[in-house]
Amino acid sequence: MKRWLDAWNARCAASAPLRFVDANLRGAGQVMFQDHPLSGFLFIVAIFWGAVAAGATAIAVAGLVGLVASTGTTCALGVDRAAIGAGLHGYNGYLVGLALATFMPPSAALWLYVVFGGGIATIATLATARLCATWDAPALTAPFVVVAWLMLLATHAFGNLHGALPESGAVVPLAAAYADPLRAGDFLRGTLLSVSQVFLKGNAVAALLLLAGLAVSAWRAAAWALVGAFVAVVAAHALGAESDLVTGGLMGFSPVLTAIALGAVFAAPGLRTTLVALVATLATVIAQGAINAVVQPFGIPSLTAPFVVVTWGFLLARPAAR
Amino acid sequence: MKRWLDAWNARCAASAPLRFVDANLRGAGQVMFQDHPLSGFLFIVAIFWGAVAAGATAIAVAGLVGLVASTGTTCALGVDRAAIGAGLHGYNGYLVGLALATFMPPSAALWLYVVFGGGIATIATLATARLCATWDAPALTAPFVVVAWLMLLATHAFGNLHGALPESGAVVPLAAAYADPLRAGDFLRGTLLSVSQVFLKGNAVAALLLLAGLAVSAWRAAAWALVGAFVAVVAAHALGAESDLVTGGLMGFSPVLTAIALGAVFAAPGLRTTLVALVATLATVIAQGAINAVVQPFGIPSLTAPFVVVTWGFLLARPAAR
Amino acid sequence: MKRWLDAWNARCAASAPLRFVDANLRGAGQVMFQDHPLSGFLFIVAIFWGAVAAGATAIAVAGLVGLVASTGTTCALGVDRAAIGAGLHGYNGYLVGLALATFMPPSAALWLYVVFGGGIATIATLATARLCATWDAPALTAPFVVVAWLMLLATHAFGNLHGALPESGAVVPLAAAYADPLRAGDFLRGTLLSVSQVFLKGNAVAALLLLAGLAVSAWRAAAWALVGAFVAVVAAHALGAESDLVTGGLMGFSPVLTAIALGAVFAAPGLRTTLVALVATLATVIAQGAINAVVQPFGIPSLTAPFVVVTWGFLLARPAAR
Repeated sequence: MKRWLDAWNARCAASAPLRFVDANLRGAGQVMFQDHPLSGFLFIVAIFWGAVAAGATAIAVAGLVGLVASTGTTCALGVDRAAIGAGLHGYNGYLVGLALATFMPPSAALWLYVVFGGGIATIATLATARLCATWDAPALTAPFVVVAWLMLLATHAFGNLHGALPESGAVVPLAAAYADPLRAGDFLRGTLLSVSQVFLKGNAVAALLLLAGLAVSAWRAAAWALVGAFVAVVAAHALGAESDLVTGGLMGFSPVLTAIALGAVFAAPGLRTTLVALVATLATVIAQGAINAVVQPFGIPSLTAPFVVVTWGFLLARPAAR
Repeated sequence: MKRWLDAWNARCAASAPLRFVDANLRGAGQVMFQDHPLSGFLFIVAIFWGAVAAGATAIAVAGLVGLVASTGTTCALGVDRAAIGAGLHGYNGYLVGLALATFMPPSAALWLYVVFGGGIATIATLATARLCATWDAPALTAPFVVVAWLMLLATHAFGNLHGALPESGAVVPLAAAYADPLRAGDFLRGTLLSVSQVFLKGNAVAALLLLAGLAVSAWRAAAWALVGAFVAVVAAHALGAESDLVTGGLMGFSPVLTAIALGAVFAAPGLRTTLVALVATLATVIAQGAINAVVQPFGIPSLTAPFVVVTWGFLLARPAAR
Repeated sequence: MKRWLDAWNARCAASAPLRFVDANLRGAGQVMFQDHPLSGFLFIVAIFWGAVAAGATAIAVAGLVGLVASTGTTCALGVDRAAIGAGLHGYNGYLVGLALATFMPPSAALWLYVVFGGGIATIATLATARLCATWDAPALTAPFVVVAWLMLLATHAFGNLHGALPESGAVVPLAAAYADPLRAGDFLRGTLLSVSQVFLKGNAVAALLLLAGLAVSAWRAAAWALVGAFVAVVAAHALGAESDLVTGGLMGFSPVLTAIALGAVFAAPGLRTTLVALVATLATVIAQGAINAVVQPFGIPSLTAPFVVVTWGFLLARPAAR
């Protein structure tokens, strides 16, 4: 792997078009914190697999369009090359493209909207990075959440931007009948789908490809993704979450990101890191339930807001602790 | 103009009461970023014209009361004279006064509320400026938005503070029937009213006076106000916004401010500034639709929140781009 | 008192378990800004009195559990000893415990939830303190508000976390009939209960114990608590608030904290401090009405958010004023 990567980097150094491809691949990889072109490639393949299987290829294409629009905007703006090279300005555009196409049916307006959203994602990423730099904190997926929320909310106001959003409605406690008992297979399904829902896809094969993509760059990240997903599924079910959400991976995708971030990216391995990452993963499950209620009246999805809130909290708290 | 301004400044230097008048005029001018007493004077005249024409003179008076209360509070607190002189602590009080009187019928309670709101606007402006200084960002109209939102929301809770607010309700997608085709005259009307709605007024003559007020200080600001308004009206209509909102200027007043800020105030002229300002203006149209949905359940207006969010985003992103 | 405190401090210096007790007592005291073990002791006694009188002893116990979990987490994380010693990491956990048990019926799940919430309150306190340090601002009770809001919102999503929350619903203006005239006794009752509602209790004896707890540490703080409560009750009634809320202390607990903070904690005595604290107390009454409307659709209580927003605003504005 190391040898292959060195050869690839040498080729990229000699070719501007290849550097652009590399930046986009790493941009996809950074959705799960991997600065590695092969991770990004496998992630993109996974999302295509999931989209085609669901009869919605357009979603995977929209992700790519958002990614390229975002990376392209960054280059056009003359941003620091090292950050572009690491894909740090592409992952939010990739997610914005996937989210817009997931919650809006295909149309000419959608494609313009995706290109525009990819470009705006770059602005939002630069702005968030600037704010966060004050506390040495990473932007995480906050730019994606803000841009996608605003662009999806706008579909309520504009008749030519059709939305296929979650129904808006009053916030009411979950009826007990929706929390059915789960069987062993349901736990497995929920765990895998929690991994693939990081990219807004509910597909087990896509999840395995995503885990492979993590593993080629960092096996610890892959392990924490699985652990985080499993912990989230068990915890959400134990707390009495709606079973369809649990088995569909919709209570676990934010916890997966928290687990990778705090277990394998922003801290060295050790007992303390393990305990902190597990507690933060549980906190993200609770935050997921909470933010699901917050967005209910507005008819928008939570996206990865629970991950952002909890992970920022734990990262900001760290310097005070020894 | 230069000679007149020098003479006026000399008179102000010699007279404390005149300096107070000057600070208030510049305060009104700063609503559209103009540190110029004649701009402020023309803005105030424009608002009186619009208010009288609508049979609601009290609104224009309330704006003045809020402006004077705000500037007076700043002086009483002993704030830095240069900032007071430039009107940087009056514009939020002016807008708070206009907003409270626009969304609450006249009463003794209203007048006390406007004075109180003008004073609190000064506190909010100082606090916001302090937060923003960390990133060399301007406070924009964020203090106005926060103070007016809280004071209007409070009318829900207090029986003696009657509100005439937009109806609260569930967030539902716009029915297609509300997006009628527009004629050429509607575009003109929407463009002018977008300019006057910056001060919460829908009046074409007021808009022309406002544009004149901009032009005496900076013709580029006046040009960008017109361009921003026109782009917003065309874009909102193309996206399928409710026609009554478009022609009433209610989809365009935030974009107008974004266009002036990014096209003529915080960047030197040039192709890049032009492109960035146009993209940001479009983003503000989308943010306007989004924030209209966000405030719907609370029965409050969006005010200039879309302008603040988008313009902060673009200004924060700038240092990273060359 | 001074002599007793010296003796207590000497004992604590010699005993780690006693230091832990001391940190918890001061943690309770810091809910109303008092770094004094006897204040904390009297506060805890007051809450037990109020809870037992209401037939809800579990609430007082949950507060203690949250307090100890929070202080314990801080010690386990190896946080700066001086801050632990001053109780600066316990008060949010105490309030989280009280709030969870107030708005959720007792169950095994509740107790686990309270322990978890106490621990998370420590993380939130460290993170908030880090953010606020940029502007030399205190964390106030923001960590409590955020953690308790998220944990209470989550009860909507999880069937095994039963909530007894305020009903969610549309935001509608208060019907005039709910603002009955008050008698002298109602004002007294509202004033005392505003003090005890700082700890989510409506009990006059508890209020007197709390005032005693303040007075042993700082009589000015006790005086400002009373003044703030009385001003809030009169202002809320004059503005036409729902009478049951006013006499139950539910319009006054946030203003009480604002009055103590700005009148007796973060500023030296004087005419200016007095005027500023009174204006801020009035602003908190208005913010209370506003935030009550904001939380209405989500079925959660305002907690002390109005105090946090207004007090941060006034503290941030201060350096610009001479």
